[in-house]
Amino acid sequence: MRVYLAGPEVFLPDALEVAAAKKRICAAHGLEGVFPLDTPPQAPPADRPYWMRIYLGNEAHIRSCGGLIANLTPFRGPSADAGTVYELGFMRALGRPVMGYSNAAADFLDRTRAFLGPQARPRADGGWEDAEAMGLEDFGLADNLMIDGGIEAAGGGFERFDAAPMQRWRDFTAFEKCCLRLKALGEGARPSPSPSPP
Amino acid sequence: MRVYLAGPEVFLPDALEVAAAKKRICAAHGLEGVFPLDTPPQAPPADRPYWMRIYLGNEAHIRSCGGLIANLTPFRGPSADAGTVYELGFMRALGRPVMGYSNAAADFLDRTRAFLGPQARPRADGGWEDAEAMGLEDFGLADNLMIDGGIEAAGGGFERFDAAPMQRWRDFTAFEKCCLRLKALGEGARPSPSPSPP
Repeated sequence: MRVYLAGPEVFLPDALEVAAAKKRICAAHGLEGVFPLDTPPQAPPADRPYWMRIYLGNEAHIRSCGGLIANLTPFRGPSADAGTVYELGFMRALGRPVMGYSNAAADFLDRTRAFLGPQARPRADGGWEDAEAMGLEDFGLADNLMIDGGIEAAGGGFERFDAAPMQRWRDFTAFEKCCLRLKALGEGARPSPSPSPP
Repeated sequence: MRVYLAGPEVFLPDALEVAAAKKRICAAHGLEGVFPLDTPPQAPPADRPYWMRIYLGNEAHIRSCGGLIANLTPFRGPSADAGTVYELGFMRALGRPVMGYSNAAADFLDRTRAFLGPQARPRADGGWEDAEAMGLEDFGLADNLMIDGGIEAAGGGFERFDAAPMQRWRDFTAFEKCCLRLKALGEGARPSPSPSPP
């Protein structure tokens, strides 16, 4: 199975090294990792702006893959990287298996409260809200319920792991768990062999 | 056309009033607004957890709609609300028209630099990076390129408007522009009537 490796690692200065490490882990589990910076299956039209060619390349990558693993480690705020979340929703709508992981294990509520600091305030009903009186999700999930829910609806799982802060983008413990589970999901999706008689 | 009204207004204490205001604007332009908190077309299984029933209801809403308008105003960070971005990617993968708007008009780069503050630092090549040496997107776009690109690929547009800070979630200027454009997109998608002879 070709697996799209969604995540904000594309912004790292050593993105290609991180991509190579993730592809090696994929290969060890019988998966083919596809990184956003790989050459896309169809070349985007040369007359489109650079950023649009990147978009079209990533969309073509996703359509060419049988599954997706999203790095949903919080990125510049309490939630995952916006581009990664977009790609997760896209793949879920294609009906293919998706997995997610985060190298920060805390609940979304706790992370959002930490992000807001003194702007987070308790509500009379026991919940929490921000300075604009907008509620904080409190479902014990890892991120916004559309993210956890989309992974669940696709038959996948959201692996959480507390990586050392300096290893946030280079610890592959939770990523490898996603590979194992996606591989099993992919095999479950194949036509099952006829059961042998006992 | 039924239009899914994606956005973080669901977290407002007066979410239903905001929903009603957006639906009135939709109706004035011949569109039927569908709000995430509306009763979904299929009731989710009663044995699923509450948050998963919300997810499944929203997915059913999106599938039942012919288009989507996403409120991509920055939410707890430099990017849009994660749930809204998920839904945008989902609808794009279904191949239906999507529009987006933000009530903060600044470029994504400028907003990200403001968010990072002194942690944003210039790179030798002229770009910017954060404290983890991760690059900042600098394409003159409104958000992560997957968001701007998905809207563009779907034939839509990303409307930006500088609303007064206190009106961030209740100014519908950019939203109404999205309604107008989505209505035109929907009409373009219909079989064209035969041209009349001159």
